[in-house]
Amino acid sequence: MSLPNQYLISAPGKVILFGEHAVVYGKTAIAGSLDGLRTYALFEKRLDGYFELNFPDLGLRRALSWPKTNLPYHLIKHTDSEQQKDFMFNENLLQALKPIVNEGNMDDENQLDKFQQAAALAFLYLVTNIKNKQISWDGMTIQISSSLPIGAGLGSSASYSVCLATGLLLAFGHISLPDESNQLSTLNSAELINQWAFQAEKVIQGNPSGIDNAVATFGGAVSYKKGSRHTNLKGFHSFRFLIINTKEPRDAKTQIEKVRVKREKYPQIINHILDAIDRISLSFIELQSSGVSQEEMFKKLEELIDLNHYLVNSLGVSHPSLEKIREITSEHNLHSKLTGAGGGGCALTLVPDDMPPEDVQLVKEKLERNEFECYETPVGGHGIATMYATTVINSLEFLDMNKNKLREIAEWKYFV
Amino acid sequence: MSLPNQYLISAPGKVILFGEHAVVYGKTAIAGSLDGLRTYALFEKRLDGYFELNFPDLGLRRALSWPKTNLPYHLIKHTDSEQQKDFMFNENLLQALKPIVNEGNMDDENQLDKFQQAAALAFLYLVTNIKNKQISWDGMTIQISSSLPIGAGLGSSASYSVCLATGLLLAFGHISLPDESNQLSTLNSAELINQWAFQAEKVIQGNPSGIDNAVATFGGAVSYKKGSRHTNLKGFHSFRFLIINTKEPRDAKTQIEKVRVKREKYPQIINHILDAIDRISLSFIELQSSGVSQEEMFKKLEELIDLNHYLVNSLGVSHPSLEKIREITSEHNLHSKLTGAGGGGCALTLVPDDMPPEDVQLVKEKLERNEFECYETPVGGHGIATMYATTVINSLEFLDMNKNKLREIAEWKYFV
Repeated sequence: MSLPNQYLISAPGKVILFGEHAVVYGKTAIAGSLDGLRTYALFEKRLDGYFELNFPDLGLRRALSWPKTNLPYHLIKHTDSEQQKDFMFNENLLQALKPIVNEGNMDDENQLDKFQQAAALAFLYLVTNIKNKQISWDGMTIQISSSLPIGAGLGSSASYSVCLATGLLLAFGHISLPDESNQLSTLNSAELINQWAFQAEKVIQGNPSGIDNAVATFGGAVSYKKGSRHTNLKGFHSFRFLIINTKEPRDAKTQIEKVRVKREKYPQIINHILDAIDRISLSFIELQSSGVSQEEMFKKLEELIDLNHYLVNSLGVSHPSLEKIREITSEHNLHSKLTGAGGGGCALTLVPDDMPPEDVQLVKEKLERNEFECYETPVGGHGIATMYATTVINSLEFLDMNKNKLREIAEWKYFV
Repeated sequence: MSLPNQYLISAPGKVILFGEHAVVYGKTAIAGSLDGLRTYALFEKRLDGYFELNFPDLGLRRALSWPKTNLPYHLIKHTDSEQQKDFMFNENLLQALKPIVNEGNMDDENQLDKFQQAAALAFLYLVTNIKNKQISWDGMTIQISSSLPIGAGLGSSASYSVCLATGLLLAFGHISLPDESNQLSTLNSAELINQWAFQAEKVIQGNPSGIDNAVATFGGAVSYKKGSRHTNLKGFHSFRFLIINTKEPRDAKTQIEKVRVKREKYPQIINHILDAIDRISLSFIELQSSGVSQEEMFKKLEELIDLNHYLVNSLGVSHPSLEKIREITSEHNLHSKLTGAGGGGCALTLVPDDMPPEDVQLVKEKLERNEFECYETPVGGHGIATMYATTVINSLEFLDMNKNKLREIAEWKYFV
């Protein structure tokens, strides 16, 4: 399938289902993809040698653009056996790009903030580093629209990184748009997307675990553990969730430091708690292959959510807003836990498949009256990974489209 | 010191500081005595061969009484080496007493309820079973007044049992009122009191752990573990606490069963949680002999309280009312946990020594506005164990005295 002049890529956000904090100490964690909270990227061919990035959700009031001739291609040595070498992080390239990011983009007084700078750097890092194996595109414009809250621990940067990697690998001739005849090669494509997205994540996050990009690429749910490769949980059904943003400022580093101090003070207590959390993740994994009914799975998921919430809280990373969410949702017999680093951030609430929309609406309204932001979305399930569409879109209208409706504008196909 | 014709005995309630539920699975628990929540028993000599029990706090509208001649003394075989044999529980005696309890006390329509019946049985069990080694008392009247809520998990039955055992052992010539010259013998007396109180607890509770009567006898804080003897924590300072009764119906058996089911379902998760709770109790014990300042001790006590609360909650025995208490108290930077079996029942809140009374009052008022009952009391500390006084009291007025002022009516001396 030959490459059209315009295509749309989308990747989901992620939510940590189980194991936050414990994962820092080598325990197993589980993350699931957020089908309903996604980043959308419209890639368009250019012939003028410019790379343009338009991402108003980051507060950028106009597109950033860079001429190809400014990029430090001399710092890249492509070898024949690319794979090995390309995935060594190129720190020199990153440093060389830092001054270039601002060039020509700073004629108003606004400096790029840290999110804008990181997004631009990740884009330029991939643009420069991925070998251009075809010459039909000489430059491109990317427009980004995301329904994910930025910096709320829902994997917004990874879903952006996966969109970048997918779109660029397509444009530069490393992968092709999949159709039914090449399923095996699309799995390889997905692996390649995941690896390049991980590079972009390194630019943005410094020291990412790799889990967010894996979830955004492969969808479903994955288990992961420090020092070993993530595992896709094949049997994971999609469940209905509310993702609730407390909008409390979130600082993962502070929360992780809190747990470290507590563990130093009470090593034996905390180690047992971390082991218990590990066992929650492992119980969840076992559950996937246990063949129990969806109903029983749901029931156990509720129990594991409660267990995990209390255990993470015992590590001292709760917040009154998270307890408030648990209180409100439990009034409707729904089970919630904090997700991510805690101390604010987000909570997730499991919603029964047969809960009537009006009842869900009631819960959402109660939460919103408490100044929380709610998103209803399936978590996990098949076919919600990186996807693409070649529907022709008026590129002047793309960024004005309703984010929650973006999914409906095209007939999507999946890489995985 | 010869025995006066009237004396007053008092024993404290208890609160579980750490380790509830885990103790069922062989883990260590810590209990502390409630100096401010006590049972008071006024013993008075009779010469007419009647044993009379007056306990209006149990809802008894008039005194129960039994002639000595009705009691099944034939079921008791006192040996010379009493100790061993007497502390084998005499099930035959208990069964024989059951019909006797009601005899002569049922001329109105009211049947004794289970608390009243248990209190009367425990009294008669000790009266019959403890050998009367002196003949100066031929019968007695006991009046009981308790500032402890009944059946709220605060050791009301044990503090009653300790009062019974102490008063009867005195009346029947097994121990004598202590003075400064016989400290060693009073320690032996306390051991004897504790053992007989345990018998009374068996009558009331069926299968008590023995911890409640140990705390009511010895005061301070004790650690205990299934199958091994309790240990007094010598260095435990007294701390200020609020004990808060949710007044939610409390059913320890249901809560214990919940944990059992959860452990059967998720053995590895729950076992790690139980081990973590064990480590909390052990950390608390270490803390007592660590020589840290009272200030640092307080800080750590707060942390252990939070840890333990979340872990017990992860076992599924929390209740919205307990979470409400945590919410209200944490608004004042106070740390709380459920105490006892959970699912309602009581919570405890640690109060800093230097918190002004008006601030404490504010917290209490907030709690009371939520229909909770608050008691402010020191927990632990020395010299708050079984105590006695020989101040002459007008026995007709005793039961009308203000329970919270009972401590002030006499100059108290301590057995331990």
